[in-house]
Amino acid sequence: MNTLKEYIEFVNETIDNSILKKDLQPAELYDPVKYILSNGGKRIRAVMTLIASRLFSDDISIAISPALGNEVFHNFTLLHDDIMDKANIRRGIPTVHIKWDENTAILSGDAMMIMANKLITDVPKSILYDVLSTFNQTALEVCEGQQYDMNLENTNLENTAITEDEYLNMIRLKTSVLIGSSLKIGAICGGASEKQANALYNYGVNIGLAFQIQDDLLDSFGQEADFGKRIGGDIIEGKKTYLLIKALEKSSMEDKQTLIRLLNNKTIDDVTKISEVKALYHKSGAIEATQQKIDALFSKANAYIADITITQSRLTVLKELEISLQKRNK
Amino acid sequence: MNTLKEYIEFVNETIDNSILKKDLQPAELYDPVKYILSNGGKRIRAVMTLIASRLFSDDISIAISPALGNEVFHNFTLLHDDIMDKANIRRGIPTVHIKWDENTAILSGDAMMIMANKLITDVPKSILYDVLSTFNQTALEVCEGQQYDMNLENTNLENTAITEDEYLNMIRLKTSVLIGSSLKIGAICGGASEKQANALYNYGVNIGLAFQIQDDLLDSFGQEADFGKRIGGDIIEGKKTYLLIKALEKSSMEDKQTLIRLLNNKTIDDVTKISEVKALYHKSGAIEATQQKIDALFSKANAYIADITITQSRLTVLKELEISLQKRNK
Repeated sequence: MNTLKEYIEFVNETIDNSILKKDLQPAELYDPVKYILSNGGKRIRAVMTLIASRLFSDDISIAISPALGNEVFHNFTLLHDDIMDKANIRRGIPTVHIKWDENTAILSGDAMMIMANKLITDVPKSILYDVLSTFNQTALEVCEGQQYDMNLENTNLENTAITEDEYLNMIRLKTSVLIGSSLKIGAICGGASEKQANALYNYGVNIGLAFQIQDDLLDSFGQEADFGKRIGGDIIEGKKTYLLIKALEKSSMEDKQTLIRLLNNKTIDDVTKISEVKALYHKSGAIEATQQKIDALFSKANAYIADITITQSRLTVLKELEISLQKRNK
Repeated sequence: MNTLKEYIEFVNETIDNSILKKDLQPAELYDPVKYILSNGGKRIRAVMTLIASRLFSDDISIAISPALGNEVFHNFTLLHDDIMDKANIRRGIPTVHIKWDENTAILSGDAMMIMANKLITDVPKSILYDVLSTFNQTALEVCEGQQYDMNLENTNLENTAITEDEYLNMIRLKTSVLIGSSLKIGAICGGASEKQANALYNYGVNIGLAFQIQDDLLDSFGQEADFGKRIGGDIIEGKKTYLLIKALEKSSMEDKQTLIRLLNNKTIDDVTKISEVKALYHKSGAIEATQQKIDALFSKANAYIADITITQSRLTVLKELEISLQKRNK
């Protein structure tokens, strides 16, 4: 496999030919698992595990099962997060708790978490402990990140400030550590040294942070057709984003109060709200600060892997993936 | 440790001095975990792991972490089951989704599942794979059992019969396999052979089945003061129990229809309903059949461990635990 597209197709085929093909019983438990797993997504985590393994070994067969494990775990978090966030649609189709019900979504999610563990455990005994301790630590951090996210969403900006560090810590735990650990587990499967595996982890965490902050920026300033979501959704939902935190930090006291009042205003029409909030994002310099942060994180990520010995030609697909994340939807 | 009481105290102290004492953050995620773990219960699964380890080794230190893992996993299942069953009270205090909310119960449960995995993983590398594959297989089966339980509860007895085998398979998965695996994991930690570990597993599964069917019997025919729950609760809830399935199997067509009509009758008062259903349980011979099944399962369980070489004096505490389960609340 030489291109990102080939890796993604390989992951899709492997999922199709394993989990999706099996007659898993009871169907009431496993059909929702198959439903969410068959609905694509970018398979970033599975692909990262495979690509990281390929950096260190020609034979990626050892990495296939944990690659699927990372992907199944990610989809488990989506399933449960969608219940908590009361999200009705995921990747264009009804979420599991809408198509079935909440009990089904809870229990099928639990089963997915355990299926992920089984897949992760299916590695040679010599690397089992390292793979598992990376995975378990990450899995717990992802739960912590989801809790911090809910805490931040419940924070009233009129009386409590959210710091940049608090926000970065939340997205690090909620999304970035799983990017890091997907790469690290792949590296371990490929026979990387501890130093190399940790470098890949740190690379992934910083790519993950950049990716999430970019998502915040695109949500307000992307092109609807490219972004695949309505532009300004975060503003309408009053979501705490890097862009918002930077704007609050960099605005005058008066603009800051106007911004908070605007976001809390439930009567103003959406178009006006989006336009006025975006004007304040411009005025404050938050957009430039956000773009600088994204660039800095991509640079920091790359510094981690500049330091380790990897045949440059093997980095091609990883770079292709990074660029596809960096340039996506622009 | 020589008595059951000492083992239970040891488990309680270990939980107190580890998980409960730690300053785990974010508190919103971990406080509910501490809440459910601090509220006792019989600690049967942790005790079983320790006792099984002690059967094969004087040093039970290796078994402590997986013993807690089995206990934390069990409490995770209670936490999520209570949401699904809309249960308001557990061990005399409000359930997590009542004291906090459903989102908290979902996410804290997820974190507990992962904490259980971390504890289970903390064993010597030489036995890691065996311990984990036992645990993961069991964990998935417990989810399957919960799904089968919900399926049976949704079955309308007026047009669909539930067979004894279906019921036994459900309780095997939902509760018995975790008893079996708690013992098996302890045995592996103690250095048991595969044959010995599997014998302990089969012993545990059959003890677990007996225990659950006994629970069905006590719910209708126990003494309220001993049983700790209102007698007849299963009848009022129309719960599918071994007793009911046996009564339906053994009754005349007329009595069978009367029994189903009674259970589905929402207008009749509780006392009359309980009394009339119990009369049909008597008349059908279901009580004797249920007691025979319990006795047969305890015998079958013991046949499994009669076959393996264990110093008899070491079996004392296991026997004490078995008798405490067998004689409980009578």
